[in-house]
Amino acid sequence: MEQSQQKGRASIAPAQPVYVKSAATVVGKMEGEGPLAEHFDMICDTDKFGEDTWEAAESRMQKEAAALALGKASLGASDIRYIFAGDLLGQNIATSFGLMDYEIPLFGLYGACSTLGEGMSLAAMCLAGGFAERAMVVTSSHFASAEKNFRFPVEYANQRPLSATWTVTGSGAYILGTERSQVKITGVTTGKIMDYGIRDAQNMGAAMAPAAMDLIRTHLSDFSRKPADYDKIVTGDLGTVGQELLIKLLQEEGIDISDRHEDCGMKIFDSEEQGTQAGGSGCGCSAVTLAAWYLPRLISGEYQRILFVPTGALLSQVSFNEGQNVPGIAHGIVFEHVGEEG
Amino acid sequence: MEQSQQKGRASIAPAQPVYVKSAATVVGKMEGEGPLAEHFDMICDTDKFGEDTWEAAESRMQKEAAALALGKASLGASDIRYIFAGDLLGQNIATSFGLMDYEIPLFGLYGACSTLGEGMSLAAMCLAGGFAERAMVVTSSHFASAEKNFRFPVEYANQRPLSATWTVTGSGAYILGTERSQVKITGVTTGKIMDYGIRDAQNMGAAMAPAAMDLIRTHLSDFSRKPADYDKIVTGDLGTVGQELLIKLLQEEGIDISDRHEDCGMKIFDSEEQGTQAGGSGCGCSAVTLAAWYLPRLISGEYQRILFVPTGALLSQVSFNEGQNVPGIAHGIVFEHVGEEG
Repeated sequence: MEQSQQKGRASIAPAQPVYVKSAATVVGKMEGEGPLAEHFDMICDTDKFGEDTWEAAESRMQKEAAALALGKASLGASDIRYIFAGDLLGQNIATSFGLMDYEIPLFGLYGACSTLGEGMSLAAMCLAGGFAERAMVVTSSHFASAEKNFRFPVEYANQRPLSATWTVTGSGAYILGTERSQVKITGVTTGKIMDYGIRDAQNMGAAMAPAAMDLIRTHLSDFSRKPADYDKIVTGDLGTVGQELLIKLLQEEGIDISDRHEDCGMKIFDSEEQGTQAGGSGCGCSAVTLAAWYLPRLISGEYQRILFVPTGALLSQVSFNEGQNVPGIAHGIVFEHVGEEG
Repeated sequence: MEQSQQKGRASIAPAQPVYVKSAATVVGKMEGEGPLAEHFDMICDTDKFGEDTWEAAESRMQKEAAALALGKASLGASDIRYIFAGDLLGQNIATSFGLMDYEIPLFGLYGACSTLGEGMSLAAMCLAGGFAERAMVVTSSHFASAEKNFRFPVEYANQRPLSATWTVTGSGAYILGTERSQVKITGVTTGKIMDYGIRDAQNMGAAMAPAAMDLIRTHLSDFSRKPADYDKIVTGDLGTVGQELLIKLLQEEGIDISDRHEDCGMKIFDSEEQGTQAGGSGCGCSAVTLAAWYLPRLISGEYQRILFVPTGALLSQVSFNEGQNVPGIAHGIVFEHVGEEG
C-alpha cells in the first residue's frame, strides 16, 4: 500500500480518488426562511415532519434526506455498502431510528457538530482503501431536540445571550463513491480534542475555535500549503464570536485566513432578521450548508478547492451539570472541482 | 485496489494484514471478584477510581487502559496515528474526557455495546488501506454511570428482573498495527440495525439477539464458512436470555452454533454467586473479556480462529420514555492465531 497516502501528522491524501456522487438536504421552517432557502431540497413548514416527537422528527429528516440523495444518484439502498452517520442526541437515537429501514450496514458516529467531517473522513478511507464502491454519510440536528438535550426545555423560554448559536433543524445526506463525478475529496485531516477551559454552554463558538485553529494549522502544515491555496476555508458553526476568535488564534500562528474564511453557521441564517444571535449550529448546519451552497460552486468550478472544517463542542447535559469544561474537536475535508482532465 | 478485499454483502477480508499489538484492561471491584479476576491488568477496589463522579471514573478507566496498552507495546502516544473510541454515555463524554490528554486524532464512535467491534472494523480498514501504521481502539462502560443514563438512579434501588444484565465497569484498550504479532484480524462483517419490536430496557439480550443472528448468518455466507470453521463464536453481552434466543434464531436458519457459542457477558461474572441476573453487559464487557480471556488463547494457539461479535442495544433515556422499540446492532471481527508461516 502506498505510504504516500499519509500526509504529515494527521492527514491523508487518498491515492484512489473519492468522489461526491450526490447530496440532499431537508430543513425546518426557519432555515427555509433564511438566505439559503431556495437551495434546499425539502423544507418542512412545521418542524415536526409529521411525527409526534422532536426526536422522531429528526429521524424523519435523516430518512428523507437519505431517500433524496439516493434518488438524485439514481440508486437504491442496496447499492450503498455502508452508512456513516450520527447526530447530537444521546446514544445517536435520531440516526438509529432514522436510518434503520434502509437495512444498510451502519457505522454510528459521534463527533458533536463535527460529525459530517468525521463521517466523510472515514467513508473516504473506506472507499479509497478498496472496501466499498459507494458509501453514504448522513448527519442531522433539530433545534427542539437539541435544546432539550443540552440546555433548557424550549417551553422554559430561557433568555439567550448574544454568544449563543441556534441549532439548525436539518439533515444532509451525501453519497460518496469511486465513480468519477464533478467534485472529489483529495485530502482529510483528523482533529484531536482541544480544551481551552471554556465552561459556557451558551458560547460554543469559543469552545470550538481552538479546535478549528489547530485543525487548520495542522492541515496546512501536513500538506505544505497556505490559505491562498484554497478558494474558501469553511468552518461548521463557529458563528460570529467563534469566527473572530479563530482568525485571531491563527494570526498568532502567522496564518491569515481572514480574506477567505466563511462559516456555515453565519451563512444559513440572517441573524439580525431571524434573531439567531451568533449564528446557526448543530451537525445539520454544516451538513445542509455544504450541500446547498458550497457543493454547487465546486461543481460549477467557481471554487476549485475548499477546505471544509466542521467543528464540534464536546459536552452533555451531565458533563455540563458536573462542571466540566467544553472541549472542542474539528475535522477537515478538502473538496476539489474535477476538471476535464480528471 | 484489490476488489477481493470485499466479501459478499457486508464483509471485508483485508489484503494487507492487520495485527493486534497489545491490549489492556481496567475493571471495577465486582469484575475483580469474578471468574476472570486474575486475567485483568488493573482492578480498582472502589469504582470511583479516585474521581468525584461516575462519569469521571469512567474517563479515568479509559485513560488508564490506554496508558497500559501503550506501555505493553513500548509505545508513546505520538506513535499512535488515530484513536477509534466510544462509550455508552450521552455524547460520548467518558471518551472525550478520558482520551483528550493523549492529543491523538480521534474518531468518536457510538455503537452501544457493539462499539469495540465497530472501532476494530474501522481501524482495520484504516490500517489495511495504508492510512496508518498503528491505531488504538478504546471502549468503556461503568455500572453507575450507565444505570443513571439508561434506567434508574442507583440510589433508587430498583428491583432487577432475571432478564436484566449488569453493566460491566471496565475499559479495554487495543493497539492494532501493521507490524506482525501473534494475532491478526482477517475479516470484518458490519452489522445493520435490526428491530424485533422489543420494548423492555431490562431485557437487552432479547433486543440484541436478532442483530447477532443476522450478523453471524451474513458473516458465514459472505465468507462461505460454517460454524465449525471457528473454534469459538463469541458474542458481546447477550447473557443467558439472549444466548438461548440467538441459538434458536440461528437454528431456524439451519445454522447450529450451540457447541461453540460463548458470551462475554456470561464469562465475566458468576451470576449465581454475584447476583448479576442474565450476565454482564456494556461496551466494557466485551472489551475486557476479549483481552483477558480470548486474546491469550489466540496468542498461544489454543484457538486458531474465533468470530467475535459485540452486540449493541440502541436506546436512550429519551427513546425509551417516548415508547420506542429497542433495536439492536452487532459487528463481527475474525481473529486468527499467527503461526510460524505468518
